[in-house]
Amino acid sequence: MNKDSTIRIKSPSGGAEAPSGFIAAGVVCGVRNSGRRDLGLLFSELPCQTAAVFTRNAVKGAPLSVTREAVEAGGVRAVVANSGNANAATGERGIEDAYAMQALAAEALGIGAKEVAVASTGVIGVHLPMEKISAGIQAASGELGESGTLFAESILTTDTHSKEAVVQVEVGGRTVTIGGTAKGSGMIHPNMGTMLAFLTTDAAVEKQCLQETLGRVTDRTFNRVTVDGDTSPSDMALLMANGAAGNEPLTLDSPEYPVFAKAVEDVARTLAKEIARDGEGATRLVEVVVEGATSEESAATLAKCVVGSNLVKAAVFGEDANWGRVLTAMGYSGVAFDPDGLELWFGPVKVFSGGEPVPHEEAEANATLAAGEVRITARLSQGDASAIAWGCDLSYEYVRINGSYRT
Amino acid sequence: MNKDSTIRIKSPSGGAEAPSGFIAAGVVCGVRNSGRRDLGLLFSELPCQTAAVFTRNAVKGAPLSVTREAVEAGGVRAVVANSGNANAATGERGIEDAYAMQALAAEALGIGAKEVAVASTGVIGVHLPMEKISAGIQAASGELGESGTLFAESILTTDTHSKEAVVQVEVGGRTVTIGGTAKGSGMIHPNMGTMLAFLTTDAAVEKQCLQETLGRVTDRTFNRVTVDGDTSPSDMALLMANGAAGNEPLTLDSPEYPVFAKAVEDVARTLAKEIARDGEGATRLVEVVVEGATSEESAATLAKCVVGSNLVKAAVFGEDANWGRVLTAMGYSGVAFDPDGLELWFGPVKVFSGGEPVPHEEAEANATLAAGEVRITARLSQGDASAIAWGCDLSYEYVRINGSYRT
Repeated sequence: MNKDSTIRIKSPSGGAEAPSGFIAAGVVCGVRNSGRRDLGLLFSELPCQTAAVFTRNAVKGAPLSVTREAVEAGGVRAVVANSGNANAATGERGIEDAYAMQALAAEALGIGAKEVAVASTGVIGVHLPMEKISAGIQAASGELGESGTLFAESILTTDTHSKEAVVQVEVGGRTVTIGGTAKGSGMIHPNMGTMLAFLTTDAAVEKQCLQETLGRVTDRTFNRVTVDGDTSPSDMALLMANGAAGNEPLTLDSPEYPVFAKAVEDVARTLAKEIARDGEGATRLVEVVVEGATSEESAATLAKCVVGSNLVKAAVFGEDANWGRVLTAMGYSGVAFDPDGLELWFGPVKVFSGGEPVPHEEAEANATLAAGEVRITARLSQGDASAIAWGCDLSYEYVRINGSYRT
Repeated sequence: MNKDSTIRIKSPSGGAEAPSGFIAAGVVCGVRNSGRRDLGLLFSELPCQTAAVFTRNAVKGAPLSVTREAVEAGGVRAVVANSGNANAATGERGIEDAYAMQALAAEALGIGAKEVAVASTGVIGVHLPMEKISAGIQAASGELGESGTLFAESILTTDTHSKEAVVQVEVGGRTVTIGGTAKGSGMIHPNMGTMLAFLTTDAAVEKQCLQETLGRVTDRTFNRVTVDGDTSPSDMALLMANGAAGNEPLTLDSPEYPVFAKAVEDVARTLAKEIARDGEGATRLVEVVVEGATSEESAATLAKCVVGSNLVKAAVFGEDANWGRVLTAMGYSGVAFDPDGLELWFGPVKVFSGGEPVPHEEAEANATLAAGEVRITARLSQGDASAIAWGCDLSYEYVRINGSYRT
């Protein structure tokens, strides 16, 4: 991995609030029936540059248009987020509720409304219970900075654990920290901005540079994760930079830019893999590597097709190294390739080459699927490009969770 | 439905061998371990015109290239098919085995090799046991015409029942019969020729007309079915016409052509719905209707996206009328539409309109999902085009079947 950075998955503490100047809180306000934390605040004590990417779903949750407007206004330095209710497909009243949520958070934090991003995740088509949201914002603003991990908890839905990552690198003689907090679980698919991901840094970064960094990183990390092929109307990723580290503001041309960009990608990749590992009902993280492609884009398309195939996912769950399904998924990806020039591996076991099965011990191939992390590799003979995609297996539990999500 | 045709689902008898001059057989040859029928022959006593469509998967089973060559040669009047082994990803030897299967069937039937289409379905990446296939062809040729339904049985894999349909119409004063036998179950997705479907008719039909009919009908029926989003390398549909009815050969310009084309579509739609209903692990047939679209193509894309969504499928299984998932699936279909101009129904219960939830009894909406046939309707306000797609729910049983398919 990157020698310039140290990945520390801070658990139970650390994440988006790890960089200097960021504080956070998460409380129970009662949107979720379960009594779990469901309202969070993330706040930078300093002004920020903030970049954002949003879902590509034609149906967008109300918070997304409110947040997009705020990010375009240029001063976003806080996030108010709730779980349990996506405030999507809620019409005009949904938009009003999102603005009200933004205004309430701004008031509690003593900043302007346009400095607050709004995010909601959970059930679609139900109006937000605004009294609970309002009380939650009040409570959270009083607990800012007490324990960051509570913010990570407050944005979870069917996730089974919090997702946080922190990386530190040297930029211009200053130690710069990049932190991230994300949630995933269901309605996860590469064709989008992503689920909720809040990335923060105390580096000073010029705005255009920040947006390009987030776009590129999202394509290589969050957009390479698929849990179930469904893209949510609520997905968003934010990257907030408050400059507390005191470095000269980074631009795309800065000599240290590649080090910084790599560190952001490391944080995002760590979160993306955790989202895949914690997919609804998942028992295994599946990593599909495609090498020897003509372009990173076509390699990514192939890898995402394999990792998204229900039949491949069910085979992994059943510990059945059914490579015919891998081959089949590549075949319907839309990427042209010659099966005769393809090699396939399950872990270290080669199973297909030159258009024919490679004789191997089936038990040995199956055993590679029994581990918590599964790797399937496809090597084409077209070029030098490669890509990795992440997903999970398809289990009975996925069906159970999604057959009874609202009940 | 069509007033000119009578759909009779002949069960237990009838299907591709229903039209005059077609006979069939199905035997146990031992490719499948289960002792179930696994080798079938379908034969026209008269010469035929035959049209074909094949999978669009870049990986194609060996039988497909052999069959394509035969159909292009122009005289296909017989089919030899086996289940339990797809003869796909089997290299040069796989091609040789498919040619050998073709030659063995031709010899047993006393016709030329190029008059035989070859089809194989089942596990990928294993060479065919040719001695068993050879013995099976011998046995089947001795039983031709004894009971047609055995052919339908012999092509099944994880299907739970045979799929046959017959329609009769009047063409130029002659009664013309159109029959069909199909198999489906797993690796089913719209983006393909289809699974195995053998359609036959005793009508006389000009070749170009036959091919155009099959192409159009496939797009509206088999290509509107999704079970799991996986497209098989073995999919094919054949339409064979032997002219036994004695009508003047049909062309696209014949006054009776629309009646004939509609009857073929009726047979294919009946089979397509049976394939959806019998999807792996399915407990319900799901029919998604999209109306008010700008084109049939965009309506079909939207309908297929909804019926293919794992989250929608799991919700149907759980009898949870979670219309937010329907809206979400339409949103990521790639078809542009305004959610504010959309209405959604579960059965007769309207749940969404004008960008907002429509107040309704949730129990009433959920109850529409408890029936064996579920209908979800989306009405756009863009135009007059509509389309229907068929699928099934996602159950624990799908995961069980596909976690242990080879074991």
